[in-house]
Amino acid sequence: MTIGIERAACIGGGVIGGGWAARFALNGIDVAIYDPDPDTERKTGDMLDNAERAFARLFGDDRPAPGALRFAGSVAEAIDGADFIQESVPEMLDLKRAVLAEIDAAAPAGIVIASSTSGLLPSEMQRGLTHPGRLLVGHPFNPVYLLPLVEIVAGRETDPATVERAAEIYASLGMKPVVVRKEIDAFIGDRLQEALWREALWLVHDGVATVEEIDDVIRYSFGLRWAQMGVFQTYRLAGGEAGMRHFLEQFGPCLAWPWSKLTDVPELDDALIDTIAEQSDAQAAGLSIRELERIRDDDLIAIMEALERAGDSGRGAGAALKAARRRLRERH
Amino acid sequence: MTIGIERAACIGGGVIGGGWAARFALNGIDVAIYDPDPDTERKTGDMLDNAERAFARLFGDDRPAPGALRFAGSVAEAIDGADFIQESVPEMLDLKRAVLAEIDAAAPAGIVIASSTSGLLPSEMQRGLTHPGRLLVGHPFNPVYLLPLVEIVAGRETDPATVERAAEIYASLGMKPVVVRKEIDAFIGDRLQEALWREALWLVHDGVATVEEIDDVIRYSFGLRWAQMGVFQTYRLAGGEAGMRHFLEQFGPCLAWPWSKLTDVPELDDALIDTIAEQSDAQAAGLSIRELERIRDDDLIAIMEALERAGDSGRGAGAALKAARRRLRERH
Repeated sequence: MTIGIERAACIGGGVIGGGWAARFALNGIDVAIYDPDPDTERKTGDMLDNAERAFARLFGDDRPAPGALRFAGSVAEAIDGADFIQESVPEMLDLKRAVLAEIDAAAPAGIVIASSTSGLLPSEMQRGLTHPGRLLVGHPFNPVYLLPLVEIVAGRETDPATVERAAEIYASLGMKPVVVRKEIDAFIGDRLQEALWREALWLVHDGVATVEEIDDVIRYSFGLRWAQMGVFQTYRLAGGEAGMRHFLEQFGPCLAWPWSKLTDVPELDDALIDTIAEQSDAQAAGLSIRELERIRDDDLIAIMEALERAGDSGRGAGAALKAARRRLRERH
Repeated sequence: MTIGIERAACIGGGVIGGGWAARFALNGIDVAIYDPDPDTERKTGDMLDNAERAFARLFGDDRPAPGALRFAGSVAEAIDGADFIQESVPEMLDLKRAVLAEIDAAAPAGIVIASSTSGLLPSEMQRGLTHPGRLLVGHPFNPVYLLPLVEIVAGRETDPATVERAAEIYASLGMKPVVVRKEIDAFIGDRLQEALWREALWLVHDGVATVEEIDDVIRYSFGLRWAQMGVFQTYRLAGGEAGMRHFLEQFGPCLAWPWSKLTDVPELDDALIDTIAEQSDAQAAGLSIRELERIRDDDLIAIMEALERAGDSGRGAGAALKAARRRLRERH
């Protein structure tokens, strides 16, 4: 058994499924993709263009020849010959379960079936499958072809060997797998993002700041910190020489201050949607999604390369990039 | 009246006050600092060492000669001759008010008094001052000598001219001032950070992840995004071609999912403090705070320089750095 894979199936296209297809293909893996959306071929092509541009900048001539991309007419057709399956259909449990049952019936024994769900529980999704042991969550972050993180979450019936195999496969794609210790809604990343997002919605709702002002607050301050150290290591330093315990004792009481009163969930009604959509249009300043995506990708590449150069073995995402570069060179 | 300032007073040292002192001094401004802590001189010196190292890397020979650093024996002595005052004493309203009253009595007319408070309301702090119109909040982010953001918050009695003047002064120090439209507890940045932090504490409390796993989840995924675009522009792209409105309509319902049940405030009791402090020690892997600070600074410099090179006029924090470089060259 090789550590990597040779043929992947993507069930579900879109921003996430298409991003997976691009990551597979640009790592030299053949991909079959199935999505009932008649526009899938064009959308996936656009995604692949972005991803190829990013990979050319990152890896130059050290890239392997891209894998073949095939658009299948059904789930079964996409799965045929695959040795790894990534499901990325919309976030509705019934739909996920129906599609996963179809995958389960068609997939050869012993291969990993990973769901890209942002928050549904794998135990719920695997209920009723014939081979539930091979299903787990492999939750990536957009853009999937660039960001290293993938959260691996096992359900009650997931075989531990499936977790191990999925982690190996994702690492072979240049990713950073983090295995979530307990199965909870929204896992780790989306829990954290959702909490901040909820607060951001309140700030817009209450007219405290526009979406652009909030984004500026983030990217001119703690966004820079979190790109390299995360929240706990950052706060360790905020405690000064006395470190983490001092920080917790000093700032712990804030948790009970009025800051914490606004934990209610804001209602995302038409008025709030209108406000945010209009402010977001203004912030985009006429740039198309495609143009913004390229700006984002250029920035992410620049940041990851900067972190790659920092420290002997790179730091954070820079370490993942350094490892990916080494693997691609070997494979080339 | 010049746009910049020539002599600043820092009332309160520590991680924040010392960081301000370093930013002032390395921008060529004389600084007087007062803090009753007998260790202030050594701690500020260490902070200045870090900051000098960072400025040398960032600006090389284009740095101005550093301003003189003077340790004063009292508030009044520190303020003597100052044309700008930054207060950074501990986050206790009564203490802040007592110190601000002392500053207010000693400070010459017409100069700005800015408080570094992370969350106290300027209206509360200015109550009872003889000249409340010159007080506002200028809330920076650690490390103050590197991160560009400063949140400016006016109280009910703050003179609009004070806001304008503070914004000019901070910009002349290479910072990105964001004026908060409404006075609320914890402003914008700490609201957002507190929300995520609360969720992170739950994840550790419930044994879902260690502090290192949470930090990895952040820095290998959305931390990279937030360093360059913030949350709203990022989500605009997550909506794909359909943009922000589509994203909101698609993900809005998640707000009412079980993800949002855990909005309670975790109790930061001894057991949780012990767990976090121990996991944080393990994460630090024997590196001292000073060593971690230098790693952090190197990473921040690398990220900001990467963003400076991206795009014609730099992007986000990169634009601030480009502007700071231009100003320092002119002043040199």
